[in-house]
Amino acid sequence: MSDLDDIVAELRRFVAERDWAQFHDPKNLAMLLASEAGELVAEYRWVKSDEADARSHEPAARARIAAEVGDVGIALLLLCDRIGLDLVAAMRTKLEANRAKYPAEAWRGRA
Amino acid sequence: MSDLDDIVAELRRFVAERDWAQFHDPKNLAMLLASEAGELVAEYRWVKSDEADARSHEPAARARIAAEVGDVGIALLLLCDRIGLDLVAAMRTKLEANRAKYPAEAWRGRA
Amino acid sequence: MSDLDDIVAELRRFVAERDWAQFHDPKNLAMLLASEAGELVAEYRWVKSDEADARSHEPAARARIAAEVGDVGIALLLLCDRIGLDLVAAMRTKLEANRAKYPAEAWRGRA
Amino acid sequence: MSDLDDIVAELRRFVAERDWAQFHDPKNLAMLLASEAGELVAEYRWVKSDEADARSHEPAARARIAAEVGDVGIALLLLCDRIGLDLVAAMRTKLEANRAKYPAEAWRGRA
Repeated sequence: MSDLDDIVAELRRFVAERDWAQFHDPKNLAMLLASEAGELVAEYRWVKSDEADARSHEPAARARIAAEVGDVGIALLLLCDRIGLDLVAAMRTKLEANRAKYPAEAWRGRA
Repeated sequence: MSDLDDIVAELRRFVAERDWAQFHDPKNLAMLLASEAGELVAEYRWVKSDEADARSHEPAARARIAAEVGDVGIALLLLCDRIGLDLVAAMRTKLEANRAKYPAEAWRGRA
Repeated sequence: MSDLDDIVAELRRFVAERDWAQFHDPKNLAMLLASEAGELVAEYRWVKSDEADARSHEPAARARIAAEVGDVGIALLLLCDRIGLDLVAAMRTKLEANRAKYPAEAWRGRA
Repeated sequence: MSDLDDIVAELRRFVAERDWAQFHDPKNLAMLLASEAGELVAEYRWVKSDEADARSHEPAARARIAAEVGDVGIALLLLCDRIGLDLVAAMRTKLEANRAKYPAEAWRGRA
């Protein structure tokens, strides 16, 4: 996870230089994540389902979407770093659970 | 980003085996992300600010938090993969923008 | 606002009987609202845009949607009551602002 | 529910004058609600639990909070009106269910 480690190191420096760790308790970071996720949702709220892929590639929309994705990712990494959680391990564990919960044969083509 | 690449590859296989790409347009994935972020927020909603760190280490709560973090991360990677966006690059670009927007001297200790 | 007043009175009794006001600071209630909104979004996340109206009338989905709408409304009223804000007045003020921000002639048919 | 009926009537006129019903399918309105809830959460995300009441009464913050509360309420009413759901009845039904799920004796003082 070299690149994630790098960006976590950069985030730590960014936070330390501003003395913001005092605001970054896990409750606040969960709220940050939810508000950033809300902004990402806003990018797609007036787009029809079958136009959402195309919208994601229009330059102006794409720049805004990338900025919101970046915000969500940063909030998630800040939270994981604060509570000492390995994000990739958490995803792996959850994916394993999802494999068991939704067997491919039973769920093929069903939402 | 080797480990992220690995998990993205696993997610693609998971989705392909269930023929779920048809449900994974970017609008739906943004909604998935928002609903998973809502579940993560729920883990902290009755916890006081100064108890949120300790709560994150209680075993039962930590297992639920890790599961929600995993869900949020998976939703974010699915969205990035669908629209061809590099998550780490998006975080890096946003962090750069945040450095310019919040100069350390001016923002030290201010939320 | 007679009916809203009635339900606010019932909510106050519900909270008082459980001694839950101690958990209902505005920060926590905002988180409650966000998590309930996330559950409502989850009801529509795999539904195509042009199937969302029909889905809202399927009995099983409708019962779940009504339950989530109820949760969101309750969270919103709890927050308004806690901070002494008149919900209907807040909506009226915002609608007035939206009328000025989005003049009908300029915005007809544009999202 | 006279005042809610009034504002729903005003919202219908607002939407009709802009020909926006075409964008207001229930999926999109659920997304609108989630994004507005995210903006409300953002108002409290850097506030400590025991400062959240006071913050709600600071004039500048209060104006922003009222605007976000208004947005959330409008989104909720637009959704209810679109799918023909009685918001007050939905809250009442849910409150009844919560009374059964959380008996006062068993839940007094427990979050």
